[in-house]
Amino acid sequence: MTVRKGNLMSVRDDIKLLDATIRDGGLCNNFEFSDEFVKELYKTNVKSGIDYMEFGYRASKAMFDESEFGKWKFCKEEDIRAIVGDNPSDMKIAVMADVGRCDYKTDFLPKSESVIDMVRVACYIHQIPTAVEMIEHFHALGYETTCNIMAVSQANTDQITQALDMLCSTSVDVIYLVDSYGSLYPENASELSKTYIAAAENTGKKIGFHAHNNLNLAFANTIETMSYGVSFLDATVQGMGRGAGNCPMELLLGFLKNPKYNLYHLLKFIEKYMLMLREEGVVWGYDLQYMFTGFLNRHPREAIDFTSKDRKDYSEFYKSLLENY
Amino acid sequence: MTVRKGNLMSVRDDIKLLDATIRDGGLCNNFEFSDEFVKELYKTNVKSGIDYMEFGYRASKAMFDESEFGKWKFCKEEDIRAIVGDNPSDMKIAVMADVGRCDYKTDFLPKSESVIDMVRVACYIHQIPTAVEMIEHFHALGYETTCNIMAVSQANTDQITQALDMLCSTSVDVIYLVDSYGSLYPENASELSKTYIAAAENTGKKIGFHAHNNLNLAFANTIETMSYGVSFLDATVQGMGRGAGNCPMELLLGFLKNPKYNLYHLLKFIEKYMLMLREEGVVWGYDLQYMFTGFLNRHPREAIDFTSKDRKDYSEFYKSLLENY
Repeated sequence: MTVRKGNLMSVRDDIKLLDATIRDGGLCNNFEFSDEFVKELYKTNVKSGIDYMEFGYRASKAMFDESEFGKWKFCKEEDIRAIVGDNPSDMKIAVMADVGRCDYKTDFLPKSESVIDMVRVACYIHQIPTAVEMIEHFHALGYETTCNIMAVSQANTDQITQALDMLCSTSVDVIYLVDSYGSLYPENASELSKTYIAAAENTGKKIGFHAHNNLNLAFANTIETMSYGVSFLDATVQGMGRGAGNCPMELLLGFLKNPKYNLYHLLKFIEKYMLMLREEGVVWGYDLQYMFTGFLNRHPREAIDFTSKDRKDYSEFYKSLLENY
Repeated sequence: MTVRKGNLMSVRDDIKLLDATIRDGGLCNNFEFSDEFVKELYKTNVKSGIDYMEFGYRASKAMFDESEFGKWKFCKEEDIRAIVGDNPSDMKIAVMADVGRCDYKTDFLPKSESVIDMVRVACYIHQIPTAVEMIEHFHALGYETTCNIMAVSQANTDQITQALDMLCSTSVDVIYLVDSYGSLYPENASELSKTYIAAAENTGKKIGFHAHNNLNLAFANTIETMSYGVSFLDATVQGMGRGAGNCPMELLLGFLKNPKYNLYHLLKFIEKYMLMLREEGVVWGYDLQYMFTGFLNRHPREAIDFTSKDRKDYSEFYKSLLENY
């Protein structure tokens, strides 16, 4: 049995908090955040001691029509600079590049010319070969890189072992365990994280965790995997993210003992900006329809549709999911 | 390190689910549930495979004015019988008796004349001597008994050891670990549960867990302590309970693998009755104000007041809590 790293009072300098509010939260409002919102969130994150802020996706403009999405679906260099200038803070800037949905060969400047520090490559497990190519491309450009293997609750153990083997031979800096469907229990999440940590041992690579809150376990799974050595922790303000949302940043800021983290500024941001989003009708967070898809280990798309129609016939919806298992 | 009991696929016949909706949820609406609500919940619980249903408190009518509370603050024999008749189901009926706030010597019939099966004695750790006397009284009357030691996150280890020693010498059937302030992390909750389980070893007594959701950990802590051998699990429908509420029953029904448990009927109940409560303005559940009191390991009363005033100035409230630490 792996021993926990540190205890509840420890300060672990290897821990890095990544705020994914604009990226994962953008899936709730079509990435249509005001510049003021993003700028204030940036300032808040800097004051809170957050280590990385993810601004969104850099999606292919050939595949996606720019007029149909907010700008953070594309994260153009000039749009990020309009918020952060040259980013004079200690906080690093990340963007996400989806395998198969970005033009990575043409759309990224060398790091020396960009305000972006890290590119996170998101893929399903069968896309690892393409992810590897992208990682090496971004590494050659000078970026820190992560590989976020999504929907890992649907992958089998052999696939995961092979994927980790392949990634450990690349230049990737961080390998992420991603509970896309929010279907992992703490026992699963900690066992999987131990597999990732063991694979990366002696490679210098770090392991990250990205939670979803379908079973109300996003925070629990995050601190559980952390206790076994996961060090990159994704979170979003008030858990804003697709469907049931993510691990709430405020819970991590309250939990972590490192004095560099500060909860107060985030509360001010929540009062002023997050309550407004809710009032505007942006919806996310734990509810029964997401619990169902979490238990059934499947994509939340039907639950998102149920939510968007403001349906409350939970029992009928649950029955329909069981009929289409 | 204690080994987990069973795995995520196991059926553990020692597990007992206790629905505390009317009792802990009653703290949100002054126990003013309609008879229809309570009757339908009773029927739903029977169909769902719930093992125990707690109807409320049996509070002292000398101390509390009956006209100021709903009837489930007092749980008179005839009021319970109006709902369950002679309770022809396999589900057992529980009521709670608070140390210092009930007339236990006069207010309980012998079990042979009562439809109640179990009396749960709730106390703070310094009240254990009185709790012991009550337990023996109820045992002599023929009831199953529990002792629910509240606010254990504020007790020190010596006190807990002494309390467990005393209780293990009584006739009590179940000793409950109660996270009244919702301030335990899974690591704390599992360590404490191991202490309780070790103390009760070879006594035939069972250990229970009662969670609060201040840190969004009620379900996580419940299944974590269960995995180490806790067998009596308190939950409420949609987590309805004081402040941040409890472990949601629907999550436990979805999680547990015993075929006797069934989620579907509870969904029908939620649609028809719980949504109505919310619409009537009854408020409970995780929110920032409860997170603060959870982190600070204190009673939620100020957070409940904050909620009742519909305040949203989280940062000011947080500051005021820190100033009165």
